Amino acid sequence: MVVLGIDPGYAIVGYGVLNYNSNRFSIAEYGAVTTKAGDLFSDRLSEIFEGLCNIIERCRPDAMSIEKLFFNTNTTTAIDVAQARGVILLAAKKYNVPIFEYTPLQVKSSVTGYGRADKKQVMEMTKNLLGLQKVPKPDDTADALAIAICHAHSAGSLLGTLNSGGRI
Amino acid sequence: MVVLGIDPGYAIVGYGVLNYNSNRFSIAEYGAVTTKAGDLFSDRLSEIFEGLCNIIERCRPDAMSIEKLFFNTNTTTAIDVAQARGVILLAAKKYNVPIFEYTPLQVKSSVTGYGRADKKQVMEMTKNLLGLQKVPKPDDTADALAIAICHAHSAGSLLGTLNSGGRI
Repeated sequence: MVVLGIDPGYAIVGYGVLNYNSNRFSIAEYGAVTTKAGDLFSDRLSEIFEGLCNIIERCRPDAMSIEKLFFNTNTTTAIDVAQARGVILLAAKKYNVPIFEYTPLQVKSSVTGYGRADKKQVMEMTKNLLGLQKVPKPDDTADALAIAICHAHSAGSLLGTLNSGGRI
Repeated sequence: MVVLGIDPGYAIVGYGVLNYNSNRFSIAEYGAVTTKAGDLFSDRLSEIFEGLCNIIERCRPDAMSIEKLFFNTNTTTAIDVAQARGVILLAAKKYNVPIFEYTPLQVKSSVTGYGRADKKQVMEMTKNLLGLQKVPKPDDTADALAIAICHAHSAGSLLGTLNSGGRI
């Protein structure tokens, strides 16, 4: 199973593509689609859409796993992240890639076995599960890999029924 | 000048297409793109995108005018409206239609000359400016026509400098 994990954003969209077979992970690729602050917002959305289409064409994922959005204090940023997330979902839909969303709590629990793990623990465990030498940078990329792990665990084991993502 | 006004949403996207020449309006078409509550959210986004592409191909607008989003109490709804707005902007960008956004205050001021006009006054004035017999239904469609009027006024007159929309 090939899973594309996404940490949504409009300046940086972190992504990670994992192969998961027989309870073992291998990394296909990871990185970030980035856009420039000075560009028109519609141009940035278009770059994100094209970037995601390229990744999907290259990696042919069986599923997209993406973090569920919640509102924080900065609502202006949240609106723009949500707009970017809309075009990310549209890219998956264009290639008929099923999309699953997970809460931050589900991601933490799945990766570390502990819902109150801190960000650093999640990143360390992500690194270890994937056999990486270092935690990938930027953080958005490491987060995207954790989100991909979460879906692989959920879809690939009996535990999935306890921690399943909502299909959207 | 042909202006496509949009009232963004994910269940109902109101739209209105106006011709504006020599300070006179005529209506090309108006209506709504609607999606079903039971469908996957990614399918709904795709229907909105396709619906907007069809309208743009048919009407060839010179500009899209769209309401700026703000947060209300229902943040879950706001996230989904923002995601839908992202794919609406992407559709305009696909056809290189410049996009301008206006606040509700700018729309009210432009249509009625009075920033504190209520919703009913805005709708009545929209009806009168466009020479319609009745206020169009649903409300999202009437709102979209008001947003289109706002951009036409802004782009087509000296007043534009006082009440101009931000290009996004």
